[in-house]
Amino acid sequence: MTTRTYNFSAGPATLPLSVLEKAQAELLSLPGVGASVLEISHRSPAFVEIAQAAEANLRELLSISDDYAVLFLQGGSRLQFSMVPMNLLGEHANSADYILTGSWGKNAAKEAAKEGDICIAWDGGSTNYDRLPADGDLDLNSDAGYVHFTSNETIQGVQFAAEPNTGSVPLVCDASSDFMHRPLDVSKYGMIYACAQKNAGPAGLTVVVMRKDLLELSSDDLPGYLNYKVHAENDSMWNTPPTFAIYMLKLVTDWLKDEIGGLEKMHELNKQKAALLYKVLDDNPDFYQGHAKPEVRSLMNVTFRLPDDELTAKFLAAAKEQRLTDLKGHRSVGGIRASIYNAMPMAGVEALRDFMVDFVGRH
Amino acid sequence: MTTRTYNFSAGPATLPLSVLEKAQAELLSLPGVGASVLEISHRSPAFVEIAQAAEANLRELLSISDDYAVLFLQGGSRLQFSMVPMNLLGEHANSADYILTGSWGKNAAKEAAKEGDICIAWDGGSTNYDRLPADGDLDLNSDAGYVHFTSNETIQGVQFAAEPNTGSVPLVCDASSDFMHRPLDVSKYGMIYACAQKNAGPAGLTVVVMRKDLLELSSDDLPGYLNYKVHAENDSMWNTPPTFAIYMLKLVTDWLKDEIGGLEKMHELNKQKAALLYKVLDDNPDFYQGHAKPEVRSLMNVTFRLPDDELTAKFLAAAKEQRLTDLKGHRSVGGIRASIYNAMPMAGVEALRDFMVDFVGRH
Repeated sequence: MTTRTYNFSAGPATLPLSVLEKAQAELLSLPGVGASVLEISHRSPAFVEIAQAAEANLRELLSISDDYAVLFLQGGSRLQFSMVPMNLLGEHANSADYILTGSWGKNAAKEAAKEGDICIAWDGGSTNYDRLPADGDLDLNSDAGYVHFTSNETIQGVQFAAEPNTGSVPLVCDASSDFMHRPLDVSKYGMIYACAQKNAGPAGLTVVVMRKDLLELSSDDLPGYLNYKVHAENDSMWNTPPTFAIYMLKLVTDWLKDEIGGLEKMHELNKQKAALLYKVLDDNPDFYQGHAKPEVRSLMNVTFRLPDDELTAKFLAAAKEQRLTDLKGHRSVGGIRASIYNAMPMAGVEALRDFMVDFVGRH
Repeated sequence: MTTRTYNFSAGPATLPLSVLEKAQAELLSLPGVGASVLEISHRSPAFVEIAQAAEANLRELLSISDDYAVLFLQGGSRLQFSMVPMNLLGEHANSADYILTGSWGKNAAKEAAKEGDICIAWDGGSTNYDRLPADGDLDLNSDAGYVHFTSNETIQGVQFAAEPNTGSVPLVCDASSDFMHRPLDVSKYGMIYACAQKNAGPAGLTVVVMRKDLLELSSDDLPGYLNYKVHAENDSMWNTPPTFAIYMLKLVTDWLKDEIGGLEKMHELNKQKAALLYKVLDDNPDFYQGHAKPEVRSLMNVTFRLPDDELTAKFLAAAKEQRLTDLKGHRSVGGIRASIYNAMPMAGVEALRDFMVDFVGRH
């Protein structure tokens, strides 16, 4: 068995070792079932129990009330970019407001514009998405169908510490890269969606948390798979759901509950981990140039540049030698990105911190 | 570790034990990588190599030429039911012909009717989908955008032994439940799609094989995730693909090549396995009443009824005691269904055959 590295990939991302060990132990046969979770029918009692446990864990961790449906879908955030306007716009409202704080918000708005009138409530593009709007900066329409924002932008490394205030207009959040990193007041949201491959499990599962009254807006003319109401009415089993990814979500949420102790504690740990790395940036501002303004720094993705491309390449190569991998910034922005989602252990962050301090000393 | 059963689930379905063992051995860390396949970036060299190997295996097993794209998508056949007409209908052709040979073909036509004019070229509903059309029975339109058929109907257990002849109109096949069960002349098809969870891997992956000239029909106005051309241009990485399911597809296709010896041999084995069970039906026609007409019996799903519901329940309970599980027919038709996809070993079919012979002797 190869020794495991500390993997700072932005997603798919590192998973808790205890979760992987449990999945490994059960991979040939679920206890008492006699078949792998990869092989059993999604309608079998064993799998239905797993899916229900995953949902119950989510409801417990995020205090999701019965006013909200929890859906397990496929297609990632990219499909949500289209499904959100296809379901939530219509006769009652044909426009939506989008807050653009980075690459993913822009992608979401681009897809939405194919489905309805999209108004840009704020766009951080002029400063290369290094900051976030205050509520007063937002140009919101009171008759919009919804307001969309991206709670954490993985590429730029900027993150909302609290939700924008959108009054009575439903707030829709792409929480793909910081879902379950802290407690949320779900009642402030009309809808939250998140692909799983950062904080919730492997790639191939998208979790949707949606206020039930909004389900009534979905038109029967929509393609079946793109209709939230269809999925809700069928307990996410209108088609075969991604069973293994749901099983992994169940294990990850078990870990959050039982090993971490809930989202308050997870948030505390995430703040501690991020602080270790941002301190290195603050201590060496000429060497490590953080992308995000300090007040909006992401707890999930720490983005920075080195003085030149040669040093960046040296940094990546030397880190890899110390088994610190996947630190290259997104191809669209370059530099360095350390993704430190829930499952990245403190020891991994400490190892990276030590490496960064050492590297700046040597150069 | 619980002893493994023989699991006759219609999907997700049994996987080769050697594939599960390999996945289990590597689950904490891919050799030489230091992270699980569940954790690594879809753009990492290690994963790109896996995805390319999966595609190369498919191309080798099915002799897929460079005139065809191979795509790895999400959303199952249900999403394909909508994507096919959304992409292939348009100004050049606004109608398509659908051949209905069972429940899944009906579902496909229902979704397609939301997107264009759908003509039913044949419908086996009047005899409860127990037979298939001959080419002469089909009411085809020469100006249709495509002709859609379902090569194997899992619920009714009827299967085409050869493709319907549609002349120059592109043939689109939902091969979800018999993909890779035999060699195919792919050049006869415009497009083949298959969800993975019967013959190709776990749930959460849909394989699309599409003639490249048809990709040009996709409108830029389509939602990005629903546009085949977008996926083809981005090597199925426009969004994060279902990485673990693609890894499993790679292992399953390795198994087909290296352990089975290719699709000719797989077909031979599938014919032998099915013959064992159909012989029991033929030997006991008053007790085991097969649903499909003998000449269109599926090699994948053997469907039959017992004389009454009480015996059916007894059959299921007694089978389970012998570790023969998931034999209940689909809730829409009842009775018994034994799904014996590629990965069901001969020993499992023999055990079921012996049980069936014994059961009829006792009742």
